[in-house]
Amino acid sequence: MSYNAEIISVGTEILLGNIVNTDARDISEALSTLGINVYWHTVVGDNAQRLREAVEAAKLRADIIITTGGLGPTYDDLTKQTLAQCFNLPLVYHEEEAEKIKGYFSALGNSHMPENNLIQAWLPEGCTVLYNHNGTAPGCAFYAQGKHVLMLPGPPRELRVMLEREALPYLKRLSDELILSHDIRLFGIGESAAEEKLRAFMLSLNNPSLAPYAGTAEVRLRVTAKAKTSEEAERMMSPVIGKVKEVLGEYIYGIDVPSLEAAVLEKLLERGLTFSSAESCTGGLIAKRITDIPGASQVFKGAVVAYTNEVKHKVLGVSLETLDKYGAVSSQTALEMAEGVRRLTGSHIAVSTTGICGPSTDERNTPVGTAFIGLSAEGKAYFRQINMGSDRDRGRTIAAHHAFDMILKYLRNNSHT
Amino acid sequence: MSYNAEIISVGTEILLGNIVNTDARDISEALSTLGINVYWHTVVGDNAQRLREAVEAAKLRADIIITTGGLGPTYDDLTKQTLAQCFNLPLVYHEEEAEKIKGYFSALGNSHMPENNLIQAWLPEGCTVLYNHNGTAPGCAFYAQGKHVLMLPGPPRELRVMLEREALPYLKRLSDELILSHDIRLFGIGESAAEEKLRAFMLSLNNPSLAPYAGTAEVRLRVTAKAKTSEEAERMMSPVIGKVKEVLGEYIYGIDVPSLEAAVLEKLLERGLTFSSAESCTGGLIAKRITDIPGASQVFKGAVVAYTNEVKHKVLGVSLETLDKYGAVSSQTALEMAEGVRRLTGSHIAVSTTGICGPSTDERNTPVGTAFIGLSAEGKAYFRQINMGSDRDRGRTIAAHHAFDMILKYLRNNSHT
Repeated sequence: MSYNAEIISVGTEILLGNIVNTDARDISEALSTLGINVYWHTVVGDNAQRLREAVEAAKLRADIIITTGGLGPTYDDLTKQTLAQCFNLPLVYHEEEAEKIKGYFSALGNSHMPENNLIQAWLPEGCTVLYNHNGTAPGCAFYAQGKHVLMLPGPPRELRVMLEREALPYLKRLSDELILSHDIRLFGIGESAAEEKLRAFMLSLNNPSLAPYAGTAEVRLRVTAKAKTSEEAERMMSPVIGKVKEVLGEYIYGIDVPSLEAAVLEKLLERGLTFSSAESCTGGLIAKRITDIPGASQVFKGAVVAYTNEVKHKVLGVSLETLDKYGAVSSQTALEMAEGVRRLTGSHIAVSTTGICGPSTDERNTPVGTAFIGLSAEGKAYFRQINMGSDRDRGRTIAAHHAFDMILKYLRNNSHT
Repeated sequence: MSYNAEIISVGTEILLGNIVNTDARDISEALSTLGINVYWHTVVGDNAQRLREAVEAAKLRADIIITTGGLGPTYDDLTKQTLAQCFNLPLVYHEEEAEKIKGYFSALGNSHMPENNLIQAWLPEGCTVLYNHNGTAPGCAFYAQGKHVLMLPGPPRELRVMLEREALPYLKRLSDELILSHDIRLFGIGESAAEEKLRAFMLSLNNPSLAPYAGTAEVRLRVTAKAKTSEEAERMMSPVIGKVKEVLGEYIYGIDVPSLEAAVLEKLLERGLTFSSAESCTGGLIAKRITDIPGASQVFKGAVVAYTNEVKHKVLGVSLETLDKYGAVSSQTALEMAEGVRRLTGSHIAVSTTGICGPSTDERNTPVGTAFIGLSAEGKAYFRQINMGSDRDRGRTIAAHHAFDMILKYLRNNSHT
């Protein structure tokens, strides 16, 4: 049986245009991997009457109703009360949830918990509690009047984790078919170019299917199969993955790896190698991205963010002659920066970035977007010149992507380091 | 008279989670500046029946109906036909629009225009055509059955320009009220604690209104007023802002400032001061956040990300005795790190972070979440001990927040530096 779901987002801040409704996107994307169709998204404000109207409309057309938002402790959080009314269920005080909420505050070292937080422990009778890994408001799920209802929190960082760890496993149990997928991650080719090379193949597929998704300057190809068992699904996907490798192998940096930095971490761990970064235009983004991952300290020694020539020279040892002759944005400076931070931190490998993010250019009129990425290792040095474009955030992301990609390419080509 | 509007977005790609509905956000934000209330957002796929259902529901509750998407030339673009049916209007071929569409193609240097593009020249009888500055599909607006209806294109770059240059001027002519708001930004107090202190006051307000929004470890209070003129709106909001300052003044780091780092940038620029950071647990996040902002190079000299004791000692000059006696996660190490990076980069102020993000603890069994934030300036040194909690991302964000907050507090208390 194929279910259809409707997503109701509750939040005046969405209707005011203060935030964009990423929750509905995240849920839709996740449901599509389960083969659950989504025909409606609705957004209402923190208003019980309109929320009730939205729920009553959804009851007429959906099997699964998922709400986001309005689970918090303040007076305008009305979702649980309203959904409980719509489905004629009483709210019950969950002692265990109350304890978890109190525990959350004491773990943060806050001795005083505002009393209104305990409102969050009132949940519809008989519901399954969905644990909130990133906040105090628990979510919940219940089945009533022939509908599956899930209530999830609004803040995206709370929603995403609850969706993945609590809501999707709950929904998976409703279906007798399972859906598995693999993400093939590509760097160095655009979405439309990747699609062009595989279009006929993609169109010929149904189950398993193959679909491209664009990220920031990277591409994900998702292979998905529906089957009775995971073995069968894997067997169906295997030739599709083989074909993608055959056509786009040079661009693939990993399968089911969440990011370029995660691929770097994994490969360096395997080899017992460490790295460091010297960052000008990326301003610490390479360091930030690798240290976002638990365990980064095993492969990452540190970074120098050199936002002035003085720091490039004094801390990283870039020669004044190089800065003077070639400028800060040059392959020579990039290479000396990488070499300098490698020496300073004692890492095996080092990468560097130097470029013009804009809005203004440098004293040499280097075009905005120009950047050099350097890599230094024992007895080796490489650089790439890239164009970051004119969008600051995107440009910095691209430069950091290239630095990670250079480490991966270095490891691939130097297997005996 | 105050109008209320409903936004209906048409696009299967939104329901599949391939894209996030920024159009609805952009329109909502624009409407709120005109004092037009938005009570509903709805998303349906490229499906005439469900679009009709959404339009019929909107007719019952809104004065203004705005659609996005489905105006293009392909078979699944159904918006104009469906809306024309709902409002019982014939579609009429607009010769002038057809010429513009042909002109668009020849301007792009395409000699061959696919014939289906001329479908876009069929528009509801008597409508006002809204010119598309970034594409071929014209939008349109009409008044029928007591409702104002606007149809706008889906692609965000087409929508934004048409919204600003065509749709808003059209809507402005309908309204005689405007809405203004101010964001009061707080750090150091939770959303529920802030609300607790102001609940009675908030509930007593209607216009202007006051509402709290939670961010990651920070809180935003938004004051909003509806009035005939911006002077009147400002006059109405002023006492509300005064009351918030009276109750929560110590936590306010700025009004209408987008973030702590933006407040830091602004204050340092005013004083002509620079800063740098020495980062262990934040791993470059402070550097990344300040350099996210264009113009950061005027106040930010650089950073050292010291992910090992060796880097803390060799690069930042933290003494081996300090590391040995007090450990890397200690106030002493934090202070020496800040002092070290200030010296190294030649900045006026420096901040530092050292803490245990987890998952595992250090060799001294310092509890996960413990962190010290240091600040060094000429002749001054401060530190804070904080608890980052057990969530890695959130903990790092909190530690960076505190570092920025310490700079702001330092500047507030040292007005003659």
